[in-house]
Amino acid sequence: MANTYALTRHLPILAWGRTYSRTAAINDLTAAVIVTIMLIPQSLAYAMLAGLPPEAGLYASIVPILLYSIFGTSRSLAVGPVAVVSLMTAATLADVTQTIDVGYATAALSLAGLSGLILLAMGVLRMGFIANFLSHPVISGFITASGILIAMSQIKHVLGIKAHGHTMPDLLESILSHASDTNLLTLAIGAGAIAFLFWVRKGLRPALIRMGLRPGAADFATKAGPVLAVVATTLLAWHFDLAQTGVQIVGAVPQSLPPFTLPNVSTDLLAALFGPAALISIIGFVESISVAQTLATKKRQRIDPDQELIGLGAANIGASLTGGFPVTGGFSRSVVNFDAGAETPAAGALTAIGLAVAAVFLTPLIYFLPKATLAATIIVAVLSLVDLKTLRESWAYSKRDFGAVAITVVLTLGLGVELGVVAGVMLSLLIVLFDTSRPHIAEVGMIKGTEHFRNILRHDVVTDPSVLTLRIDQSLYFANARFLEDHIYNRIIDDTDIKHVVLMCSAVNEIDLSALETLELINVRLKELGIDLSLSEVKGPVMDRLQRGGLLKHLTGRVYLSQFAAFCALRGQADKVSDLAQPGSA
Amino acid sequence: MANTYALTRHLPILAWGRTYSRTAAINDLTAAVIVTIMLIPQSLAYAMLAGLPPEAGLYASIVPILLYSIFGTSRSLAVGPVAVVSLMTAATLADVTQTIDVGYATAALSLAGLSGLILLAMGVLRMGFIANFLSHPVISGFITASGILIAMSQIKHVLGIKAHGHTMPDLLESILSHASDTNLLTLAIGAGAIAFLFWVRKGLRPALIRMGLRPGAADFATKAGPVLAVVATTLLAWHFDLAQTGVQIVGAVPQSLPPFTLPNVSTDLLAALFGPAALISIIGFVESISVAQTLATKKRQRIDPDQELIGLGAANIGASLTGGFPVTGGFSRSVVNFDAGAETPAAGALTAIGLAVAAVFLTPLIYFLPKATLAATIIVAVLSLVDLKTLRESWAYSKRDFGAVAITVVLTLGLGVELGVVAGVMLSLLIVLFDTSRPHIAEVGMIKGTEHFRNILRHDVVTDPSVLTLRIDQSLYFANARFLEDHIYNRIIDDTDIKHVVLMCSAVNEIDLSALETLELINVRLKELGIDLSLSEVKGPVMDRLQRGGLLKHLTGRVYLSQFAAFCALRGQADKVSDLAQPGSA
Repeated sequence: MANTYALTRHLPILAWGRTYSRTAAINDLTAAVIVTIMLIPQSLAYAMLAGLPPEAGLYASIVPILLYSIFGTSRSLAVGPVAVVSLMTAATLADVTQTIDVGYATAALSLAGLSGLILLAMGVLRMGFIANFLSHPVISGFITASGILIAMSQIKHVLGIKAHGHTMPDLLESILSHASDTNLLTLAIGAGAIAFLFWVRKGLRPALIRMGLRPGAADFATKAGPVLAVVATTLLAWHFDLAQTGVQIVGAVPQSLPPFTLPNVSTDLLAALFGPAALISIIGFVESISVAQTLATKKRQRIDPDQELIGLGAANIGASLTGGFPVTGGFSRSVVNFDAGAETPAAGALTAIGLAVAAVFLTPLIYFLPKATLAATIIVAVLSLVDLKTLRESWAYSKRDFGAVAITVVLTLGLGVELGVVAGVMLSLLIVLFDTSRPHIAEVGMIKGTEHFRNILRHDVVTDPSVLTLRIDQSLYFANARFLEDHIYNRIIDDTDIKHVVLMCSAVNEIDLSALETLELINVRLKELGIDLSLSEVKGPVMDRLQRGGLLKHLTGRVYLSQFAAFCALRGQADKVSDLAQPGSA
Repeated sequence: MANTYALTRHLPILAWGRTYSRTAAINDLTAAVIVTIMLIPQSLAYAMLAGLPPEAGLYASIVPILLYSIFGTSRSLAVGPVAVVSLMTAATLADVTQTIDVGYATAALSLAGLSGLILLAMGVLRMGFIANFLSHPVISGFITASGILIAMSQIKHVLGIKAHGHTMPDLLESILSHASDTNLLTLAIGAGAIAFLFWVRKGLRPALIRMGLRPGAADFATKAGPVLAVVATTLLAWHFDLAQTGVQIVGAVPQSLPPFTLPNVSTDLLAALFGPAALISIIGFVESISVAQTLATKKRQRIDPDQELIGLGAANIGASLTGGFPVTGGFSRSVVNFDAGAETPAAGALTAIGLAVAAVFLTPLIYFLPKATLAATIIVAVLSLVDLKTLRESWAYSKRDFGAVAITVVLTLGLGVELGVVAGVMLSLLIVLFDTSRPHIAEVGMIKGTEHFRNILRHDVVTDPSVLTLRIDQSLYFANARFLEDHIYNRIIDDTDIKHVVLMCSAVNEIDLSALETLELINVRLKELGIDLSLSEVKGPVMDRLQRGGLLKHLTGRVYLSQFAAFCALRGQADKVSDLAQPGSA
């Protein structure tokens, strides 16, 4: 039993494969046809975005989908090249191939392979929780900025000029300095395709529904928009032989199934790719798991993040061995797959077959496809990544969260995707540190007639001039230990009545070694001033740990079970309440 | 008045300068003589450690001390070259001068200047709190590993061989591969000096006291040990002309006051130095402020961290303009200064004069000084940085803190100082994130006869099968929002009795945008399952913020002022307690 369970857990295909029905098969097949049609132009376009030949996009959509359908836990996720990961791939490869003598396409294989191994390792180490450590505002800001960068990077294809760069300033400068080379025919095709695709998105669906089409069919027609643009502009380019007038076309694409390829595994290259591969893995994983989770919830299915890492890892290793580049679960293709009624990962496998057929038979037909058309499909697709809603909401909700989004956007645009996301993550961590580094510390007194102690600023309480009681509303750790120290010294420096300081620890869930050392220091310094230090309401696990440190041995006061006991004892009634002192093992 | 205050705050010299007495002057002069004698060999040695000519060490100890005595707030801190910062300087310059065409000494000036500007900027921006963000275990591990690396880096001078490297494996390999070139005379001098200096530290002081010397005088003799070693080995090298037999000597040192120098400010160089300069600044600041704070507390003086940044910034800019390299407040020299009775920063100024005299008149005398002697003084000095106590204590106190120390030590030894400290800091942040990412969530019920709600696992409480109440013992933010989500789903998935979920927020100090979005999602998903979501005991500031987000508009339940009110209402007595619902602005 246990073995079967473990096997099913790591090979989810065994779970759904056993009960696969005819209805499910029909639904999966329908979804596969729709997704295949949508994926052909998208795969070619993302390969271009990654700086690779178009066929790499098709290859990256075939074996990875198959492997994911075996190892992944989502029933609707469609794995393949996606915009943000393709952009990160382009930025990485442009960098690495400048300093290391390796082919661009070979480096892409190495990047996918390394990324696959990192994902697999994270899966085996059960590190799926790591996705939680990226804050929503940071991800949203990063994706928004990436969308803008991607759109910018495609403008050169729409204008028919040469330009390069992976940051906003570089791209702008490069585009402006080459703008005079604009090929007007290319611009006409590119701008026309953009306008058409926008209209398809905004105007076509309502129009079709008004004309009496079922919403499902209208949706399908909308998704087929890019294919229509591809077919129309390819025919134009072929008929008028536009390549002669300088319009860039895709050109010869090999007619072949995904080839077997071996990535370059030289130490230099792998060392240079490791950091970017880790970033691409994490960003890809976060994007993929968010989509998978959203779709699973709608059908009350469950996603296992650790197994997802293994599925994505296998997919990327597959990509590296079959002429691809880094892949992940994509938002738009997965939603299309889901909406089209895919019930199991078999839909993905069928899509893979559809794309394999396309790779073998349809590639000659895209010889005349203008690159401007592909650029147009990318531009229209990624502008939906731009998320102004989060910016607006975060502005209303919290200026700090807004700051995190805004800074991530600005840094990603200004410094590129890699530095941008790293800076965003650092920033969100710093915000947390900063928040917890100035904990709320309340001076408390006893509410008359009760045993409760509350903030003296908000309640009418009994206090004793010789006893200073501070309630610390946060765990104590390195980032706030010094704050506590300063707070205590500042409070007692001019108040010579104080003879006893009590730290009320009811909200202290943790005391780390730095904080322990600080408490020891506070204890010593107060002793020099003739003041003793006591603790009250220390939680069990914290007390257990304190036993192992040196503080309790030297503590000038005592540890009291309750604040009430501490207050009674220190007011001068020590004899009456000695039994209230907290036993060592409390 | 306000102006005078501001002026005194930024020019602390005005505060102590006005009341400077004759006694203070005598005490300062005594301290200055002792510190000067100690600093001469130390300055030469640390310059060698940084890879610079010996005079740079003297220069770096003159103007920086003067500037610090004007702008700094500590009355005992002695600023100059220190071991760890010198090591970081060497590692940075070795790197940078390989890729950028700039002289080593010139790059050192730029590094000091840039570091000074960074410190100044941090001071102006009042970022002194940043020192709190480095955990004690990480700093301790970093310093320990640096001590070991420094000692290793000096072994080549003791053996009289060539070797290089800034990590443990590189240094070991390099030393072993050149070990056969060992110069035996050099080794004799180096090993002899090390043995002598160890004996001075451990054996001389007690011996002198037994012989009837006052402890103060015995201490002074102990501090003079390195000078004795320098004099003795210099005489040996001169008398036997050891340089002829291959013993490396210091050689000609210019007789001069600190020269006026201009750092190289090419963009390439500054860009390459920025990261290392920031690291050196922060590490130097942390070291310096810890020493300053320790000494100030002993005399009940106060240190202003922001003004300290300005003082250290001025010192480093001074170093960059007068032939020096990065400096900071050093532990051993400051303690000597303090113990010798220094009362004001004037002691530092007098030390600077002493060193200036040495730079002009004594430099010819060190021509024959063997480098092995300097290496010996470094090795003996830095071994006191190795802090096994923290390793032992952290092992006893918390395996996690121990892990942070141990990993920082290993990474610093293995990857070098820069990556080591960055990795250590990252690690300590990850530990905090990881800690708070799995908050304690208790299912609570009402203690009979009270209005208190406690953990159902620890107390005998009243519950209602239709009401699930969870108390969250942590602020909600991006790193733990998903954990809460999963926790709730897992709890309700098989319990169809539950109709109401209440989140008791008494310990929630903060809800960030990520957590807000998660709460909205939980609200929606519970609604789909026919369960409503309520909140209770939401703190005022958190409530204020929730008003600005979208959650409250869509919340299927209510926000209750107290958990008691929530429990009464949801048990089916809604009519009786409707007045207990929390008003919007609570």
